[in-house]
Amino acid sequence: SRSIRLAVVPGDGIGPEVVAEGLKVLDALGLTIEQTVYELGAAYWHKTGEVLPDATLEEIRGHDAILLGAVGDPSVPSGVLERGLLLKLRFELDHYINLRPVRLYPGVGTPLAGVRPEDIDMMVVREGTEGLYAGAGGVLRKGTPHEIATQESINTAFGVERTVRYAFELAARRPRKKLTLVHKNNVLVYAGDLWARTVDAVAKEFTDVDVDYCHVDAATMYFVSQPARFDVIVTDNLFGDIITDLGAAVAGGIGLAASGNLNPSGAAPSMFEPVHGSAPDIAGQGKADPTATVLSVALLLDHLGLADEARRVEQAVADDIIERQGAWAARSTREAGDDIAERVAG
Amino acid sequence: SRSIRLAVVPGDGIGPEVVAEGLKVLDALGLTIEQTVYELGAAYWHKTGEVLPDATLEEIRGHDAILLGAVGDPSVPSGVLERGLLLKLRFELDHYINLRPVRLYPGVGTPLAGVRPEDIDMMVVREGTEGLYAGAGGVLRKGTPHEIATQESINTAFGVERTVRYAFELAARRPRKKLTLVHKNNVLVYAGDLWARTVDAVAKEFTDVDVDYCHVDAATMYFVSQPARFDVIVTDNLFGDIITDLGAAVAGGIGLAASGNLNPSGAAPSMFEPVHGSAPDIAGQGKADPTATVLSVALLLDHLGLADEARRVEQAVADDIIERQGAWAARSTREAGDDIAERVAG
Ligand SMILES: CC(C)[C@H](C(=O)O)[C@@H](O)C(=O)O
Ligand SMILES: CC(C)[C@H](C(=O)O)[C@@H](O)C(=O)O
Repeated sequence: SRSIRLAVVPGDGIGPEVVAEGLKVLDALGLTIEQTVYELGAAYWHKTGEVLPDATLEEIRGHDAILLGAVGDPSVPSGVLERGLLLKLRFELDHYINLRPVRLYPGVGTPLAGVRPEDIDMMVVREGTEGLYAGAGGVLRKGTPHEIATQESINTAFGVERTVRYAFELAARRPRKKLTLVHKNNVLVYAGDLWARTVDAVAKEFTDVDVDYCHVDAATMYFVSQPARFDVIVTDNLFGDIITDLGAAVAGGIGLAASGNLNPSGAAPSMFEPVHGSAPDIAGQGKADPTATVLSVALLLDHLGLADEARRVEQAVADDIIERQGAWAARSTREAGDDIAERVAG
Repeated sequence: SRSIRLAVVPGDGIGPEVVAEGLKVLDALGLTIEQTVYELGAAYWHKTGEVLPDATLEEIRGHDAILLGAVGDPSVPSGVLERGLLLKLRFELDHYINLRPVRLYPGVGTPLAGVRPEDIDMMVVREGTEGLYAGAGGVLRKGTPHEIATQESINTAFGVERTVRYAFELAARRPRKKLTLVHKNNVLVYAGDLWARTVDAVAKEFTDVDVDYCHVDAATMYFVSQPARFDVIVTDNLFGDIITDLGAAVAGGIGLAASGNLNPSGAAPSMFEPVHGSAPDIAGQGKADPTATVLSVALLLDHLGLADEARRVEQAVADDIIERQGAWAARSTREAGDDIAERVAG
């Protein structure tokens, strides 16, 4: 069997705990995995003053995929690790698709009353390499009453089109074949217009896909009042960040939300990570739910063309959820990983 | 009794219907109101090609307050009326505080399971005159594969500080005395840093207010999973736009969400409007819920120093909600206004 070269970045907080369970589930599939573990994150930064050395980045490039836990720690100024590691990987490896399923598994509790699993089944295609995440902006007269701080959202036809195209291809493969552009084009007129024109243009090639538009503010309302309205959503980097956290919340919580930072061209390894953060408050206690990481492993398998294995992992999670109903709190991170891995091994 | 000079902008869609009921409730208080109605919106734009002539803006300035219904119509390109009328008024009249209560009235259904009215009682203080709403940005090589579209968020110490100060003053007057800054300072580092430093600085003058920080993505999760976490929220223009729509959804829907666009200095009239839009799909059918407009009238009264009258209106709405429970759909916009006005007249 083929061997997968996997770069593993456990990161901070609960990152290492959940990544261990993701790897356990991957092992249970009987695949040959060559792992390289990169101990990056808060401790590495404190020790070396560096976040992601160039040489490490180059090494990581030589892998088939990356599994990342979470980064961020209260001992490090906000943004240093997030931008220096997570966003740096997304940008350097051109992860232009940030794919985030929002799906309510049967048996999972949702904060929404009267919502059934079939009402929440969407894929959010978040652009991953531009917008307000480009890092453009600056500050003038810092610390004075005349300070001005700017942030610039940069949107290119190149970046928007490849994202929109990916989203249409995905929508065309799904039963409902519906695509919704989420933006705020009545205020962000330049970027919004580029996104809307791009969707209109690509739509001509996908005549069987229903196209819809929704302002981001209204979209958050529909996430709680009519989530069934959405199938595939395509949106920019920041709006995608916001609505996928909300999506995670309505689909049963951040403990279940998976994501793939994809470079569909294959020119660089794609990266898979749970949507949740490092949760330093519960780190090291065996309390974290590893399911989001395990579902991210399923996205990783899909990306590597191992669709059967991906379905086995998803099915194991679905079965595990049904069985553990109500008894979750009693199980440690490791026990949860064991249970799912056992099902995967069959 | 003192006379209130009120500029009324009914606007588009359901705007005129809900504004009529807001005025009815205002009349029921027995105040002397001098109204000037400005027929602005889609029809005016189609007829004249103008959205808000300078002379009209100058006339509006001469009033004590503005009551606005909603603007926007499918026959007008997205953004033209929103930016040319609504945002223009907010910017020209320096409505730097966009005040949006998020409150679950007893008897109102929420999409959230197991949430009680006391769990949702917050005030969102949204900055109203800068950020990504400044209109800065542009487009290069439009319509080509090399198009670049930018949007710039502009944040000033002046604009941020007056907003943060207003929010602290508000928090200090509320029982829980808690203020949460909502931003995304791990990515929007320049603006996020300005906001965070400003909150830290002003906090020194309000030592009895508890200060908290929450990333906007996480905030949307907490809105559905733990809304009780929030008391006063202070945030920028775009994040405030997004989370107040979500807030409206969890607090029983957009039919109840009120807002005030305030110029606390009094140098120009403040503007009061429901958070909902023009809803062209239900316009003219007497189906719109006027409650959001009526609650906006309560904010207007508060702003004009008529606190007793404001409480009477809020109480009338609260009583009306309890009484109408479950029977809402049977009542027209006008009947709803009549019912609330009758209670106010008492
Ligand atoms: C940690 C942060 C930089 C990141 C983001 O904003 O993209 C996170 O919120 C996410 O959604 O993956
Ligand atoms: C209509 C639109 C420009 C406006 C905004 O984005 O501020 C609206 O969504 C609101 O929240 O009042």
